[in-house]
Amino acid sequence: FKTDILFLPVGEPAKSMENLTIIWEKMHDLQFTRHNPVLVVGGGTIGDVGGFAASTYARGVPLFQFPTTLLSCVDSSIGGKKGINYKHLKNMIGSFYEAEFTFIDPVFLLTLPKKELRNGLSEAIKSGIIGDEGLFNLIYDNYENILNRNLNILKDVIKFSIKLKTAVVEEDPYETIGYRKVLNLGHTLSHALEGIGGFSISHGEGVAIGMVFAAFLGMKMGITPLPTMERIENIMNRVGLPTSFPKSLIDKLVERMYYDKKRDDDKIFWVIPEKVGQVGFYKFDGAQIKDALISFCKEKNKE
Amino acid sequence: FKTDILFLPVGEPAKSMENLTIIWEKMHDLQFTRHNPVLVVGGGTIGDVGGFAASTYARGVPLFQFPTTLLSCVDSSIGGKKGINYKHLKNMIGSFYEAEFTFIDPVFLLTLPKKELRNGLSEAIKSGIIGDEGLFNLIYDNYENILNRNLNILKDVIKFSIKLKTAVVEEDPYETIGYRKVLNLGHTLSHALEGIGGFSISHGEGVAIGMVFAAFLGMKMGITPLPTMERIENIMNRVGLPTSFPKSLIDKLVERMYYDKKRDDDKIFWVIPEKVGQVGFYKFDGAQIKDALISFCKEKNKE
Repeated sequence: FKTDILFLPVGEPAKSMENLTIIWEKMHDLQFTRHNPVLVVGGGTIGDVGGFAASTYARGVPLFQFPTTLLSCVDSSIGGKKGINYKHLKNMIGSFYEAEFTFIDPVFLLTLPKKELRNGLSEAIKSGIIGDEGLFNLIYDNYENILNRNLNILKDVIKFSIKLKTAVVEEDPYETIGYRKVLNLGHTLSHALEGIGGFSISHGEGVAIGMVFAAFLGMKMGITPLPTMERIENIMNRVGLPTSFPKSLIDKLVERMYYDKKRDDDKIFWVIPEKVGQVGFYKFDGAQIKDALISFCKEKNKE
Repeated sequence: FKTDILFLPVGEPAKSMENLTIIWEKMHDLQFTRHNPVLVVGGGTIGDVGGFAASTYARGVPLFQFPTTLLSCVDSSIGGKKGINYKHLKNMIGSFYEAEFTFIDPVFLLTLPKKELRNGLSEAIKSGIIGDEGLFNLIYDNYENILNRNLNILKDVIKFSIKLKTAVVEEDPYETIGYRKVLNLGHTLSHALEGIGGFSISHGEGVAIGMVFAAFLGMKMGITPLPTMERIENIMNRVGLPTSFPKSLIDKLVERMYYDKKRDDDKIFWVIPEKVGQVGFYKFDGAQIKDALISFCKEKNKE
């Protein structure tokens, strides 16, 4: 069968309806049947749009993934979530579609910008906090080697991150049980930070701040021990990930997390670290979160 | 949660990218989460676009189907195939997505135009030929009552058709084994008849002609016994479905079935009736098919 290569722009704009249709048209030009595979080489956004195209052409063709960023190696290439942004419908259009195989070679990381390494580390740290204290310690103790792209340690970071995420996804592949939502640790605040205007932040940076805040919130509520919170904050500092945000954003953040949805139920679930390697679900309302955000900013920003 | 009703035009134009995005936008306006269901009330094309929207919003929301045409009751609502037409990519964009439930009430058929009843009967007859001689005989013997909308008999026709199709789909849900392709009986020629310009024909009518031709071809090749071919032709005549097409179309049909794809392999699979209730896969090349089409037209059109 015929093959061809299609280059797409990097980053969030890649996940567009326009690129989706460009891929469909290319598959049509190549006279794809449902037996011809799509090979996706790139980071998470390329995996998203390429994977969604594979899942929707001829009702699904084989998908082979070659993630090239640390973030996609440890997180987005695992678990089958694919999708695009359509106008204001951000991350709402997509499907669950598993790749036939995912080929991960850390050699791609040798040329990855350091900012991108940190982005991926944020999700690897998340996996550690959720359920693998050994992974957390591996990053905590070897952060310098990791940032210097020591391939042996990077390989272990990737391996353990995948192991944790795979275990979670296998328990709840389509997020029907709800257990899969442990992967949202740090993401409630992160989505709000990424979504409001005027604060430029990458996904991994947002998740880092979100995890530190989740630990802080847990501590205030008597769930997270102080040393756990401190270790979580320390690992972000070691890796070079941010741990705070300007207090001027608080009102907009609470608005976005709580009142955007216009739901009757005014409490939402938060994933809170109980210790490194264990998290739980806890419900808090907007007023509780606003209080916690105020004392969080007061404490972090004075440093 | 909030609900709303969206009306879409009937027929093939309903399966458009435009309508898909209209449904997405409506789901967004209603603040859908992955727990809110889409209820699809209508025929096959509405089921296609509505089902595809349900499968791609929030990576899949629950789908409840209420098929209102005989064709969608006996065929298209079963088996999970959903999709849209995108520009020249006819039926190429879609997914496999099963409904949470499919609610079938033959009372909808009381107001269905007779042409639409015949359309659905064509697929029910197909199910009979593929694997249920009792269903075939039920239609053969009761065609007048069926066309007069006797709900008891219609209920049985629907019940047995679903039973057959469900059994086939369960063997090969994603068409990976190939067995599911028995459902393509009559469809090779039908797709060509529907696809070429200048010959206006419904899907059910095309499938009827396609099944008679498949039996004729089988007879020529020593597979289908003459009485079987005659019974298949008779049932179409009884129901009022067409059994022939103008011979002027032959070259265009062969071109479309064989050379459109530009594949190396110049033989394609045909589903051929071995007797009523049993079919097999057989490979023929374009020259064999052209010969068979010529003698088919010679024989049928002289009547």
